[in-house]
Amino acid sequence: MNKSKQLFSTISSNGELSFSLVETDVPAPKPHEIIVKMEAAPINPSDMWPMFGPADLREASFSDDGKTLKAPVHETMLPRIKPRLDQTLPVGNEGAGTVVAAGDSPQAQSLVGKTVAVLTGASFAEYCCVPIQACMVHNEGTTAKQAASSFVNPLTALSMVETMRLEGHKALVHTAAASSLGIMLNKICINEGIDLVNIVRKQEQVDILKGLGAKYVLNSSDESFKKDLYKAIDATGATLAFDAIGGGTLVSDILTAMEAVGSKDATGLNTYGSPELKQVYIYGNLDFSPSVLNRAYGMTWGIGGWLLMRFLGKLDVKDVLAMHKKVADEINTTFALNFSDEISLEEAMQPANIARYNAKKTGEKFLINPTK
Amino acid sequence: MNKSKQLFSTISSNGELSFSLVETDVPAPKPHEIIVKMEAAPINPSDMWPMFGPADLREASFSDDGKTLKAPVHETMLPRIKPRLDQTLPVGNEGAGTVVAAGDSPQAQSLVGKTVAVLTGASFAEYCCVPIQACMVHNEGTTAKQAASSFVNPLTALSMVETMRLEGHKALVHTAAASSLGIMLNKICINEGIDLVNIVRKQEQVDILKGLGAKYVLNSSDESFKKDLYKAIDATGATLAFDAIGGGTLVSDILTAMEAVGSKDATGLNTYGSPELKQVYIYGNLDFSPSVLNRAYGMTWGIGGWLLMRFLGKLDVKDVLAMHKKVADEINTTFALNFSDEISLEEAMQPANIARYNAKKTGEKFLINPTK
Repeated sequence: MNKSKQLFSTISSNGELSFSLVETDVPAPKPHEIIVKMEAAPINPSDMWPMFGPADLREASFSDDGKTLKAPVHETMLPRIKPRLDQTLPVGNEGAGTVVAAGDSPQAQSLVGKTVAVLTGASFAEYCCVPIQACMVHNEGTTAKQAASSFVNPLTALSMVETMRLEGHKALVHTAAASSLGIMLNKICINEGIDLVNIVRKQEQVDILKGLGAKYVLNSSDESFKKDLYKAIDATGATLAFDAIGGGTLVSDILTAMEAVGSKDATGLNTYGSPELKQVYIYGNLDFSPSVLNRAYGMTWGIGGWLLMRFLGKLDVKDVLAMHKKVADEINTTFALNFSDEISLEEAMQPANIARYNAKKTGEKFLINPTK
Repeated sequence: MNKSKQLFSTISSNGELSFSLVETDVPAPKPHEIIVKMEAAPINPSDMWPMFGPADLREASFSDDGKTLKAPVHETMLPRIKPRLDQTLPVGNEGAGTVVAAGDSPQAQSLVGKTVAVLTGASFAEYCCVPIQACMVHNEGTTAKQAASSFVNPLTALSMVETMRLEGHKALVHTAAASSLGIMLNKICINEGIDLVNIVRKQEQVDILKGLGAKYVLNSSDESFKKDLYKAIDATGATLAFDAIGGGTLVSDILTAMEAVGSKDATGLNTYGSPELKQVYIYGNLDFSPSVLNRAYGMTWGIGGWLLMRFLGKLDVKDVLAMHKKVADEINTTFALNFSDEISLEEAMQPANIARYNAKKTGEKFLINPTK
């Protein structure tokens, strides 16, 4: 294990993406570090921007030596990604494997041989060197494949519920709700008796969530969507939404419905709308088009970005560790994930595979297995 | 003082605004109430919606008896104002006058004869009956005209600075910055050494603010505006803005500039943008068109409504009273306001006057004097 193959992404200042598999040296772990032999790393939506940035993947092709995928980046996009230009950057937010070496500290040594999940930013590799704080120790019997998606989706779903509680809301709205994350969120909310209004775009996604036992599932393609949304928000009292889409009018439509419910019994001027805070957090960018706000929601509303790592940073360490334990204990139930495709590091560079996993289709989820 | 003439607004469910001067009985004050003979009430931008709602004032005309101004409201707007339909509602957020009667409590009795400002929602009247908590006692020598605008603009300006401090920001951006409020905010910020980035639309507004000693005044009509905005935010470190406009792209442009400054020294992926919260509060609606957000500001940003009364409600009473004292003590300096026009209650109903005060032009500010 002196050498490790690892995927790297570079965008040059003259507008070319290079995505390559490079052999690197595995470092000697420092006292609080471990070396993990990676066996399973999911390709998450949040991996796409680090991997490919704004490159035009329809124009992707291999370099002459067949080792580097190249794709053009339009020059108008370069200012936006200035901090990364001309740097060779690791990719892969998370994954799991077996601890094969450890630094001198007793805590690190105690992990040797165990299955751990890691949050690293460099998980698309044969070996990862990570500080023990960036790993989640799994229970005996849990496989690396089962543990692959321990951080991003499970902690996001748990943190959405935690945000709801900390900020004093009593029910949730979630968009793009048939995602892997959305399914976990449904399981958590059903377990804990929390009302969750799911918004999806297609009937097949309605069916998936209804099959899990979800009570409120709305199809935004239905003509009756805005009325359905009002009814569901009225029934649940939801004043908090998490949105994965970003662009368009959906964020505004949700706030409009919340305000209509909040003011349904108002009399008199009601100039400033209902007094309860109506909040939407945007945590994803499935639609890069602008968000359009009609602001027909009085004066007590908020919209903002929401990022898991920055949310977790505000919690006590013990609360984060309690989340880790819950994920490890429920990795095959609440947080179970089915992968549609298992591919090697080399296969992750194939344009045909990239086109598929970059499409982020419902029910399609790719796993990189670096041992393959 | 058994009778009081007072302005009322009604919008009927068949789409007609009636704006009338009505004679009402002055009530007997309860123990903690006072009766104020109103001598000066400003017409603020925030009074327009209660007074006229979405009526088409270009079509305004008097009823046959000459006592009621009528104007049509388009039927598509009626659902938005459902809570107020067919109700006769008082208007006028604030004003000042002399206490001419008081309830039995010693606190109420101690105010008889004093000049007070009131926050009432029914200030466009000859007499107001208000609880003593809704009044600000002025120092001897202060006239009602000087005290007329004691609440809305002064407390908003002070509360913007307080919000900045409570939420951990160190400088401010303000739009529509040559307003009466904007001028007070400049005086406060200059006094307290707070960096304030003023955004206006016209050179004459730049001149007004520069004349006050404002350091950062940007004209959004200038071609160099976005560059100027970046430079001013870079120089001040502002991560909080208050916006009076609402519609269009200005809110998004401010956040974009804050993010560009926050990430100017970033290296590597910087997928999620700068970690500091970049916040814009929308407190006005000078432009009713949609707000358009490009979301090019990473994941740590917020936009929301901001309402003075709801902000004050979160403060300790002693902090609010300290603000009252500051306003009373500085009513002729920091919080001084020049009125361009002084009109009677009858004159406030004249279409030609309405057209002028509803235009909210820089430098034009109307005062209703019910004794006139």
